[in-house]
Amino acid sequence: MSRYIKRTSKKAGAAPVTLVHVGERKLDKTRITLTTYDEKSTSTTALQDAAALSGLKRSAGKRLWLNIDGVHDAALVESIGKKFGIHPLTLEDVLSTRQRPKAEAFDTYLYIVLKMLKYDSGTRAIKSEQISLIIFPDLLISFQESTGDVFDGVRERIGKTGSTLRRESCDYLAYALTDAIVDNYFLILETLGQDLESLEDELIDSPRAEAMQTIHALRHELIFLRKQVWPLREVVNRLTREESAIIREPTRLFMRDVYDHTIQIIDTIESYRDILSGFLDLYLSIVSYRMNEVMKTLTIIATIFIPITFIAGVYGMNFKNMPELDWRWGYAGVWAVMLTAVAGMVYYCKRKKWW
Amino acid sequence: MSRYIKRTSKKAGAAPVTLVHVGERKLDKTRITLTTYDEKSTSTTALQDAAALSGLKRSAGKRLWLNIDGVHDAALVESIGKKFGIHPLTLEDVLSTRQRPKAEAFDTYLYIVLKMLKYDSGTRAIKSEQISLIIFPDLLISFQESTGDVFDGVRERIGKTGSTLRRESCDYLAYALTDAIVDNYFLILETLGQDLESLEDELIDSPRAEAMQTIHALRHELIFLRKQVWPLREVVNRLTREESAIIREPTRLFMRDVYDHTIQIIDTIESYRDILSGFLDLYLSIVSYRMNEVMKTLTIIATIFIPITFIAGVYGMNFKNMPELDWRWGYAGVWAVMLTAVAGMVYYCKRKKWW
Amino acid sequence: MSRYIKRTSKKAGAAPVTLVHVGERKLDKTRITLTTYDEKSTSTTALQDAAALSGLKRSAGKRLWLNIDGVHDAALVESIGKKFGIHPLTLEDVLSTRQRPKAEAFDTYLYIVLKMLKYDSGTRAIKSEQISLIIFPDLLISFQESTGDVFDGVRERIGKTGSTLRRESCDYLAYALTDAIVDNYFLILETLGQDLESLEDELIDSPRAEAMQTIHALRHELIFLRKQVWPLREVVNRLTREESAIIREPTRLFMRDVYDHTIQIIDTIESYRDILSGFLDLYLSIVSYRMNEVMKTLTIIATIFIPITFIAGVYGMNFKNMPELDWRWGYAGVWAVMLTAVAGMVYYCKRKKWW
Amino acid sequence: MSRYIKRTSKKAGAAPVTLVHVGERKLDKTRITLTTYDEKSTSTTALQDAAALSGLKRSAGKRLWLNIDGVHDAALVESIGKKFGIHPLTLEDVLSTRQRPKAEAFDTYLYIVLKMLKYDSGTRAIKSEQISLIIFPDLLISFQESTGDVFDGVRERIGKTGSTLRRESCDYLAYALTDAIVDNYFLILETLGQDLESLEDELIDSPRAEAMQTIHALRHELIFLRKQVWPLREVVNRLTREESAIIREPTRLFMRDVYDHTIQIIDTIESYRDILSGFLDLYLSIVSYRMNEVMKTLTIIATIFIPITFIAGVYGMNFKNMPELDWRWGYAGVWAVMLTAVAGMVYYCKRKKWW
Amino acid sequence: MSRYIKRTSKKAGAAPVTLVHVGERKLDKTRITLTTYDEKSTSTTALQDAAALSGLKRSAGKRLWLNIDGVHDAALVESIGKKFGIHPLTLEDVLSTRQRPKAEAFDTYLYIVLKMLKYDSGTRAIKSEQISLIIFPDLLISFQESTGDVFDGVRERIGKTGSTLRRESCDYLAYALTDAIVDNYFLILETLGQDLESLEDELIDSPRAEAMQTIHALRHELIFLRKQVWPLREVVNRLTREESAIIREPTRLFMRDVYDHTIQIIDTIESYRDILSGFLDLYLSIVSYRMNEVMKTLTIIATIFIPITFIAGVYGMNFKNMPELDWRWGYAGVWAVMLTAVAGMVYYCKRKKWW
Repeated sequence: MSRYIKRTSKKAGAAPVTLVHVGERKLDKTRITLTTYDEKSTSTTALQDAAALSGLKRSAGKRLWLNIDGVHDAALVESIGKKFGIHPLTLEDVLSTRQRPKAEAFDTYLYIVLKMLKYDSGTRAIKSEQISLIIFPDLLISFQESTGDVFDGVRERIGKTGSTLRRESCDYLAYALTDAIVDNYFLILETLGQDLESLEDELIDSPRAEAMQTIHALRHELIFLRKQVWPLREVVNRLTREESAIIREPTRLFMRDVYDHTIQIIDTIESYRDILSGFLDLYLSIVSYRMNEVMKTLTIIATIFIPITFIAGVYGMNFKNMPELDWRWGYAGVWAVMLTAVAGMVYYCKRKKWW
Repeated sequence: MSRYIKRTSKKAGAAPVTLVHVGERKLDKTRITLTTYDEKSTSTTALQDAAALSGLKRSAGKRLWLNIDGVHDAALVESIGKKFGIHPLTLEDVLSTRQRPKAEAFDTYLYIVLKMLKYDSGTRAIKSEQISLIIFPDLLISFQESTGDVFDGVRERIGKTGSTLRRESCDYLAYALTDAIVDNYFLILETLGQDLESLEDELIDSPRAEAMQTIHALRHELIFLRKQVWPLREVVNRLTREESAIIREPTRLFMRDVYDHTIQIIDTIESYRDILSGFLDLYLSIVSYRMNEVMKTLTIIATIFIPITFIAGVYGMNFKNMPELDWRWGYAGVWAVMLTAVAGMVYYCKRKKWW
Repeated sequence: MSRYIKRTSKKAGAAPVTLVHVGERKLDKTRITLTTYDEKSTSTTALQDAAALSGLKRSAGKRLWLNIDGVHDAALVESIGKKFGIHPLTLEDVLSTRQRPKAEAFDTYLYIVLKMLKYDSGTRAIKSEQISLIIFPDLLISFQESTGDVFDGVRERIGKTGSTLRRESCDYLAYALTDAIVDNYFLILETLGQDLESLEDELIDSPRAEAMQTIHALRHELIFLRKQVWPLREVVNRLTREESAIIREPTRLFMRDVYDHTIQIIDTIESYRDILSGFLDLYLSIVSYRMNEVMKTLTIIATIFIPITFIAGVYGMNFKNMPELDWRWGYAGVWAVMLTAVAGMVYYCKRKKWW
Repeated sequence: MSRYIKRTSKKAGAAPVTLVHVGERKLDKTRITLTTYDEKSTSTTALQDAAALSGLKRSAGKRLWLNIDGVHDAALVESIGKKFGIHPLTLEDVLSTRQRPKAEAFDTYLYIVLKMLKYDSGTRAIKSEQISLIIFPDLLISFQESTGDVFDGVRERIGKTGSTLRRESCDYLAYALTDAIVDNYFLILETLGQDLESLEDELIDSPRAEAMQTIHALRHELIFLRKQVWPLREVVNRLTREESAIIREPTRLFMRDVYDHTIQIIDTIESYRDILSGFLDLYLSIVSYRMNEVMKTLTIIATIFIPITFIAGVYGMNFKNMPELDWRWGYAGVWAVMLTAVAGMVYYCKRKKWW
Repeated sequence: MSRYIKRTSKKAGAAPVTLVHVGERKLDKTRITLTTYDEKSTSTTALQDAAALSGLKRSAGKRLWLNIDGVHDAALVESIGKKFGIHPLTLEDVLSTRQRPKAEAFDTYLYIVLKMLKYDSGTRAIKSEQISLIIFPDLLISFQESTGDVFDGVRERIGKTGSTLRRESCDYLAYALTDAIVDNYFLILETLGQDLESLEDELIDSPRAEAMQTIHALRHELIFLRKQVWPLREVVNRLTREESAIIREPTRLFMRDVYDHTIQIIDTIESYRDILSGFLDLYLSIVSYRMNEVMKTLTIIATIFIPITFIAGVYGMNFKNMPELDWRWGYAGVWAVMLTAVAGMVYYCKRKKWW
C-alpha cells in the first residue's frame, strides 16, 4: 500500500535546502534526454551525464526540452540547477517526490509539479509518479521519477513538421505535457468506471463477501486519486490566470481547455464516490435482506415443527396411566391435532407475510 | 449504464486541436437545417452537405439559425468552422460530446455547451445529449448529437408572425433554446418525482427486496442529473452578467429568468436526494423491524415449547426404576408441570413486551 | 404529497411571456380588495372585476393596497399589469405558483415572491401558498393563491388611527406583510417542535414501528420547509441592502429585524434536522438492543435445554442391550448429569453476562 | 426540554414594535442595580423602580452600569428606553428572550445580545439566559432574565482600586462582561468533557442500554450549545472590526482575545460532536459484536445437538421390525455414530473460527 | 485522555491580564537557555534565573535566541515581558497552554503560537506541547512547556559555520523552528499510517472485537490532530503574506514552503479520516457477513433435522393402535420418508444459495 505516508531519510529539522533525495528510489541509473527543435528541424540526443550539459547553448529561435528520468541523483539536479540558475527551493522540491501538485512563479521561470498516474495491471492499483516542469521561454526541463511516461504523443508531434508545437515557445510544450498527463487521467477513470460497472452487476446479481473488499479497494483508489487531482485544479486554474509572463496569452486559452478537463475529472471522481457509497448501502441492504430471508425460513420451520414435536413427545412418555394411548382413535386423533396445529401456524405465518 | 466514462478513440497526448469525433456515434447521416427569418418572413431549408453552405450570405436584418443533427462528421464541422471563422478549440469541443456545460466568450461569438435530457421510457433511464450553441448577433449555429429535440415550441414561435423571436437578434434565439432545454428538465424532475412518490407508497405499504434496487437506480439517476445541472447554473449565471456583448441587456433580463429556473431545479434535485436518503433509512429500519418481529416469534415458540418438550422427553426414558411412571396421577401431574412452565414463559414474554 | 414537482400545463418551449396560469387552481372566483389609507382615514372596498380598476386614481398622500385572492385569471392579471405598467416577466411569475422566493428590482417597482405557510390540521402537513408583492412607493399589489391569510394583524393596524403603518409609505406595508409571513413560520416551527418533543418521549418510553414513519414524515416536512425558507434569507438580506430606492432607509432597519428572524428560523430548522437524525439513530439502536435481548433469551433457553433433551432422548432409545436402564440409580444418575449440564450452561451464560 | 421553540404570546402580524415581553417569565420581581464608578470611587445602589431613574445624571468622568434582572416588565424597559433615547426595535429585542446573539450599531449606542449559559446540576441540562448589553461611552445597561450571573468577578474588579476597569470607558466594561460570559462556556465544555470521558470508559468497559440514551442526551446538549455559540463568533468578530466608535481601538485588542476564545470553543464543540458520533459507532458495533457472540453460541449448541438428538429419536421409535435394536453392539454403535457426528460438527465450527 | 478540555485554576470573570499559569504543570524547574550568534561565532549559555537576563544587551549584528523550558513560572515570564516590552495579552497567552495556534502582529514583534506534537510510545497516544515564539528582528524568545523538543537540527545548523541560519535575521530562525515543528508532523502521520496499514491487514485477515477499539482510538487521535493542524494552516498562510515587517520577503518564500507542507499534512489527515471511515464500514460489513454465515448454518441444520426429528418422534409414541409399527417395511419406509424430506430441504437450501 503506497497510500500512507512513508518514513523518508530526511531528518526533521534538517536545513531546508540541503539537496537530498526524499522518496522511493525507482530507477538505477538516471537517463538524460535532450530534444532541440525549431520550426525547421528536431533532434534528440541522449546525454551521458551532467558534464555533457556544460556545452549546452541556448540560442534564439531554438527550443530545448531537457528530460531527466530519475531524480535520486542530487548532484546531477544541483548541477542542472546551477547551470540554469534555478532557486535551491525548486531543486529541493524536484528531489522530494512527496510534493503536492503546485505552480510557483519565479523571476525567470515557472515551476510546476504534476502527478502522472499509471495503472499497474499487476496489483490492480493506481501508481503515481511526480513530474516536475521548469519552464523558461526557450527551455523546458522535465524531471520524472522513472522511465516510461505518457508523452509519446507529444514526442511524435515535435517530430512532425508544421505542428503547432514546433512553432510555439516552451510554454506551449508545457501545455502539451500537462494536457497529456490530464488526458491520461481519463483512462484511469475509465478503468475505474469499468470496475464500478462490473461490481454493480455482481452486486445486483449475487453479492459475495469479496464484493465488500472490492468496494473497499475502489474507495481507497478514489481517495488516493482525489488527493492527486484536487490540487491540480488550483494549479491549472492559476496557469490560466497567472501573472507570470512565462505562459503567454494564446497558450492560456489552451490551458483553459485543460482546466475544463480537470473540472470534469473532479466531477467524475465525486460522482464515483457517490456511486460507491451507494454500492455500500446496496450491499449492506442485500446482506440484511438475505439474513431476513434465512431467519424467516428458520422461524417458519421451527414454528411449525416444534409444537408438534412436543405433542409427539408427550405420547412417547411411558406413564402407566395414560388413557389416550388405549383409545381406539387416539393415534388418528393426535395426527388430527398435529395437522390442526400446523395449519394454524401456516396461517399465522401467511398473515404475517413471511411466506 | 452510460453513467461511467467510456473509453474513446482519442489517444492521450494527441494534438489538442486535431478534429476527431469523441464519443458515441448516435446517427448515421448528418442533417443540416437552415432557418432564415426576419420580422416579415421565415423560411426553412434542409441542406444536402457542407458545400451547400458556401453560397450562404449574411445580410443585415436577416437572422440565420443553422442546426446540425449529428456531430460525428469532423470534415463538415471543420468546413463550417472555416466558413464562419470559429476557433479550432471550439470546433474540438463541438466534436467531443463529453463536455461539461460551459460558456466561453470569443472575439466574435459566444460558445455555449448545454446538455439536453431525454427520458427513455424503454430503459427508464435519463439520457443526455450535448447541444453546442455558437452565437453571433445575426447567426446561431446549433449542433445536436442526434435528431429529435425539445425545440419544436421555438420553431413554432419563429413561424408565427409578430412573435418576439422574429423581432430580436440571435441572442434571444439562444435564450429561447436554453429556456426550452431548462424547461424540459422540469419534465424529467416530474417523472422522477412520480417514481419517488410511488416508491414511497410502496415502502410504507410493504417493502420488497426490489425497493432497494429502485432506490439504488433512482440515486444513480440523481447523481447523473446533478452532474449535468450543477455546471449549468454557473453557465447561465455568467450569461446574465457576461462581459461579452453578444447577449444584450434586454435578453439578460430573460436569462435571469432561466437562472431562477436553474436554481429551482438544483433545489429540487437536492431535495430529492434528501428524500431518497430518507427512503433508504426507512427501508432499512422496516427490514430491521420485521426481522425483529420474526425473531420474537421464533423466540416465543422456542421458549415455550423447548422446556416442555424436554419434560416429555424425560418421561419417555426407558429406565426400569422410574417411580413417577407408576404413580396414579403421574401423567396428570406432568401436564400440570408443563402447563405451569408454559404459563411462566408466557408471563415472561408478556412482561418483556414481546407479545 | 405535494412535495414533488407536479406536471403543469405549460409546454416546454412555449413563449416565455405568454401569460397562462401555472400550478394548482385553488379558488373558484378571484376576489379583489382595495384598501385606501392615509394618516387620517382608511377605507376598504371589494371590487367586482378588473373593469372596476380603470377608475382607480393614485393621488399624493394616499396609499393603495390592492389585494387579489386567486391567480388563475390570466386576463385579470394582464389588465392589472397594463394599468400599472408592470413588466411581462413579473406578470408571468405572478401567474406561475411554482416560483422560488425572490426579490427583483424593476425601474418603477420592486417585485417580491414569498411563501406563506399554513399548517393543515387535517393531514398534519404544512401547505405553502405563493404571495407576490409588487411595491410602488404609493401602491402595493399583493397576489395570493387563495383566500385566508396571516395578514389580519396588518389590517387591524391599518384600521387603527395613529399607527406607524398609516404614516409610512407602501414599503413599510411591504415590511409589515413580510414580517407577518415570517412570524407565522415560528408557529409552524412550534408545531413541529411539539411533534418532535412527543416523538422523543415516545421513543425513549417504548418505540413502536410507527415511530419510524413519524420520523420519516417529519423529515419530509423539514426538507420541504427548508426549501421554502433558505431562499427567503437571501431575499430579505437583499431587501436590507438593495440599491432600489423603493425600500427607504428607515424601513431597512425594520427589514434587518425580519432578517434576524429568518436566520433564527433557519438555525432552528437545521437544529431540528440534527435532532431528527439523532432520533433515527436512537430508534435503530433501541430496535437493535431489543433484538439483542430477544436473541439472548432464545440462546439461553436453547443452550440449557437442547443438551439435556438429547440426554433424555438417549435413554428413550429402545435398544435391547442398554445396561444403564437396568441400573438401580440410573434414573437418578441421569437427573444428576442433566442438572450438572444445566448448572454448567447457566454458569457459562452468566460469565458471558447474557443473564 | 427547552430545546424546541415554544409558543409565545405574541400574535403573528402584531405591530413590530409593540413592547410586550416574549418568552418564559423567570422572575417575580424586577431588580434594578446601579453601579457608579470612576478611577477614585465606586458605589452600588439597588433602585426601587423606574421612577428612581429619573434623577439619574450622567456626568463627565463618571461611568454608570445599570443592571436589570428580569425583563418581563415592559413598562420599566420602555421608561428606561425613553430616558436614554433607545430605539424601539432595541427595546423590543430586549423584551423578546428568543433572540439570536447579535451586535447592532445605532447612532449613540451599541446593542449586543449574548447568551449566558448555566449548568443545571438538577436536570443535568444546560440552560441559556439572554443578556442584553446597551453600551454608551459612559453608560452600560445590562438586562438579564433572572438573578444570578457570572459577573461576580467583574464586580470585584470594579470594587478594586487601580484596576483597569475603573480607568477605562464603558466599552471595556462591555468587554469584561463578554469575556466573563465566554470564559464561562469553558466550564460548560469541561462538564460536557467529563461526561464524554466517563461515557467512553463505560462504553469500552460494558455498554448498557442507557449508554445510548446518554449519547442521545449529550448530542442534544451539543446541538443546543452549537446554536448558542456559532452566532457569537460573528458577533465578537464584528466587535473587533466594527465601524461603530463605541468600541475603541485598545479595547478591540482585548476583544480579539475573546474572539480567539470563541473560535476555540467552536473547535471544541465540533470535536465533541465528532467524538460523540464515534461513540455511537462504537456502541452499535459493540452491540452488534455481542449479538454475533450470542448467535455463534446458539449455532454451535444447535449444530452439535440437533443431529444427535435426531439419532436418539430414531432409536426411540417403536417399530416391531428394527433389527439394530437387537444387535449386541447396537447401543455402543449409536454412541459411536453420535460421537463421530459431534466431532465432525466441532471440527466444522473450529474451521469456521466460531469457537 | 487529554482530549477533553480540563478544568483550570483560572476563574471565569477574573481580570483578563492577570498573569497566572493556565494548564498542566509539566516541569519542576524552569530552564533558560540563551544562544547568541552572528556570522562568525555562536555561544550557548544556561541562565540561572530571570535576574541573569538583566545584564543582557542587544547589539547590532548579534542575534539572540532565548529559549525557556517551562511556562508555569508567571513571575519569570512577567520579568521577561517587562525587559523586552511585550504586551500583557501576549504574556497571558504564553502562560495559558490551551491556546489555539495563531499569529499576532504587534508593533515591535510578531507573536506565534504553535503546537509541537510528540508520539508517546508508552500510551501510543499523541501529545501536544505549546510553543510560543516572540520574534524581534534580532531576538527570538521561545517558550516550551517542558524540556525535549524537535529543534536539535536547528541547533546543529546554528553551530555550523557558514549556514544560512547564521547569516540571517531572527525571522529566518523562526522559519527554521516552524519548519522543524511541521516536519515533525510528518513523522506523526507516518506512525499513524503504519497503524492504519496494520489495522487494514488485520481487518481483511480476521477482524476481532479489538479492531473496533483500535479504529475508535485512531479516530480520536485524528480528531485531536486535526484540531491542532487546521488553525496552523491559517497561521502559516498569514506569515507568508503578513503586513508585519518582521518576516522579510526572502523568508516569506521559505514560509510558502512550510505552507505547502501544512496543506499536505491537512490533505493526509483528511485522507486518513476517509480511510478510517472506510475501515469502520468494512469492519461492520464483515461482522454482518459472518453473522449471516453463522445464521445460514444454523438454519440449514435446523431446517434439515427438525422435520425428521418430528417424524422419529411420531413413531416413538406409545399408542396401542399404531398400524405402521407392525408393518414389515414400516421402519424402512420411515427412513425413506426421512431421507426424502432431507433431500427436499437440501434442494431448497441449495436453490436459495445458502449452501
